[in-house]
Amino acid sequence: MEQTPDPLARFRTATAAREAAGLRRTLRARTPDDDGLVDLASNDYLGLARDARVAQAAVAATLAWGTGSTGSRLVTGSTALHARLEAALCGFTGAEGALVFSSGYLANLAAVAALAGPGTLVVSEAGNHASIVDACRLSRSRVVVTPHKDVTAVEKALADREEEHAIVVTDAVFSVDGDLAPVGELHAAAVRQGALLVVDEAHALGVIGPEGRGAVYGAGLAGERAIVRTVTLSKSLGAQGGAVLGAPEVIETLVDTGRSFIFDTGLAPGSVAAALAALDILRTQPELPELVRTRAEELAAMARGLGLETGEPAGAVVPIVLGRPETALRAAAICTEHGVRAGCFRPPSVPVGRSCLRLTARANLSSDDLAVIRGALTAVAEMKVSM
Amino acid sequence: MEQTPDPLARFRTATAAREAAGLRRTLRARTPDDDGLVDLASNDYLGLARDARVAQAAVAATLAWGTGSTGSRLVTGSTALHARLEAALCGFTGAEGALVFSSGYLANLAAVAALAGPGTLVVSEAGNHASIVDACRLSRSRVVVTPHKDVTAVEKALADREEEHAIVVTDAVFSVDGDLAPVGELHAAAVRQGALLVVDEAHALGVIGPEGRGAVYGAGLAGERAIVRTVTLSKSLGAQGGAVLGAPEVIETLVDTGRSFIFDTGLAPGSVAAALAALDILRTQPELPELVRTRAEELAAMARGLGLETGEPAGAVVPIVLGRPETALRAAAICTEHGVRAGCFRPPSVPVGRSCLRLTARANLSSDDLAVIRGALTAVAEMKVSM
Ligand SMILES: Cc1ncc(COP(=O)(O)O)c(C=O)c1O
Ligand SMILES: Cc1ncc(COP(=O)(O)O)c(C=O)c1O
Repeated sequence: MEQTPDPLARFRTATAAREAAGLRRTLRARTPDDDGLVDLASNDYLGLARDARVAQAAVAATLAWGTGSTGSRLVTGSTALHARLEAALCGFTGAEGALVFSSGYLANLAAVAALAGPGTLVVSEAGNHASIVDACRLSRSRVVVTPHKDVTAVEKALADREEEHAIVVTDAVFSVDGDLAPVGELHAAAVRQGALLVVDEAHALGVIGPEGRGAVYGAGLAGERAIVRTVTLSKSLGAQGGAVLGAPEVIETLVDTGRSFIFDTGLAPGSVAAALAALDILRTQPELPELVRTRAEELAAMARGLGLETGEPAGAVVPIVLGRPETALRAAAICTEHGVRAGCFRPPSVPVGRSCLRLTARANLSSDDLAVIRGALTAVAEMKVSM
Repeated sequence: MEQTPDPLARFRTATAAREAAGLRRTLRARTPDDDGLVDLASNDYLGLARDARVAQAAVAATLAWGTGSTGSRLVTGSTALHARLEAALCGFTGAEGALVFSSGYLANLAAVAALAGPGTLVVSEAGNHASIVDACRLSRSRVVVTPHKDVTAVEKALADREEEHAIVVTDAVFSVDGDLAPVGELHAAAVRQGALLVVDEAHALGVIGPEGRGAVYGAGLAGERAIVRTVTLSKSLGAQGGAVLGAPEVIETLVDTGRSFIFDTGLAPGSVAAALAALDILRTQPELPELVRTRAEELAAMARGLGLETGEPAGAVVPIVLGRPETALRAAAICTEHGVRAGCFRPPSVPVGRSCLRLTARANLSSDDLAVIRGALTAVAEMKVSM
């Protein structure tokens, strides 16, 4: 060991290497109107983050309850609003119980880490979100990662296990690829093998299933006690936070032992109220989820028609696969020049060689917006061809 | 392996065991006025969560920017407000750079997990917060846990290491015991051994150091580049969220590789604005941090005078150690009966045998409040003696 080296030197070296590989990020601060660009980058699928009814609910709650929840949900961080949101989430999704977290990330950490452990096998699919991967690591369970949507591999891992208990965990709608997990088949395999199924409905709530009640509900499984769902309040609901939905046994376990529940400050009252108001809007405007799915299909058809590589979107997410990080960056810049804000995803957010634009449909995209988008994607397709 | 057992059965068994051990929790939903109790349980140390100026800032931001940040900070989740808060945190703490997260929990996960890794030793102290413990696990580093405030053990672990790199991580003010870490000595040891020092200022920001600028600032180390600080916005600032403060090398590393930064929705605009307003208040009312420290000393003196076991509070946190979970529960109930809301901490929040009341001082405790508190603590002391 060298004597007293600079402990920051290795970060400079690593940053230079990321720079050379096209993997540096810069934070771009949005302006309130986002420079007039058509937003195809946010997860505000239903346009509710800027909805006046949602904002008014947040304002009223902030004035009535204050700006913070002031403590852990176990101490002072649970308000009557949190309880109302938990009841509303149950009502909307058909779950028996619900527990609100300050983020979807922390909800996933608890749902897997607190329900698994050394005596439990965790079977996690390759396309799962980073928060689920982190949750698997935290669980200290043995973890088997199965190929994308490979139910046979899942059932084999379950059948071959030596652990008494097992948990299967999957995204419902995959966050970058935008496709749907085989929830029904996974449930059947889990039941056959005595395993619990955890489904992350982050990109499914408000988008998939009847009235946007999610993929589990859509598969007719809302009443199944051995399914745990996680949701975020930060995407279609336009707020912030997350929740775990499940049987009372699951909720009690998380309340008593979920580290990311117990040791975290409860969600701010304004965010709780915003999510509540958004759920109300979903009830009174049940056409919104189908609208966003239709828009996503239109975007995918448009991209395919222009010769770009995309899939069949299950929900709002439409990836345009471009390959190298530099190509994705160039494509994102072209979109901006043409008036469209697109997400640009590079490793580690996607596998190496799969850098992409991630377009997200919104229920309130107008035909004018679609014309602007067509211009941008045409320019991206031309750039790709000329490379 | 049994065929198709009920995967929920083991949770019922475990819950029954916790019940028998006095380790069940119930969520109590607060009412807006919290039933008129004197609050000694929240982390709203400066009373800013209900401050009208802070609330108005949150309201204005919600109306201008919406109820959610709508995406990852790398995509659409960074607003001009986030940038302003980062600049204000730097100005207040003397840090070179700052990065805002949706919670202090997720800030800690990134600060340790993204800066460490298999080639880096992590030396973590026994009293550290759960989020730091989880961060250590996520880092996949070798982790050495050193006894509480034992700088010699820290230096020995650093000197004995085979890894080229090392990180020392500590709470500044310990979250339940309320005492202060030997930040200056830890820094000196880290420098001698070429290690980075990470200090969690969650309970120190707004409470410790000149004008509440934190423990690192108070130790005269704000300009040290090899110190990384984490803070929460959810305690003295009365909002929600967290941040990592450090040199540009550190911030760039977290922006490019911090999983709990990249894969999480940015903090809601209302919470960002609330924290900004709270920092402003700290600047215009620099007497608040000293007020809360004085109140904490008064609470500790009162408890000691009544024969209760407590320590010398460094900041706002005053624990009353009671031993068994049932005793702590009984004490908390007595407090409620006497008009005081006290935190009740049992395993896993504290070590076995150290169940306690956790009292937190607030800058705005009145002498009437103190009289009510004296009544409650007197009854707790009587209960203890009679057991
Ligand atoms: C599939 C998935 N799960 C969980 C999360 C985390 O949710 P949140 O941003 O609310 O923490 C995200 C996105 O951020 C996600 O895409
Ligand atoms: C020492 C310490 N660090 C980190 C945290 C996490 O902060 P937050 O609640 O903002 O996630 C807490 C408390 O919750 C804490 O006490």
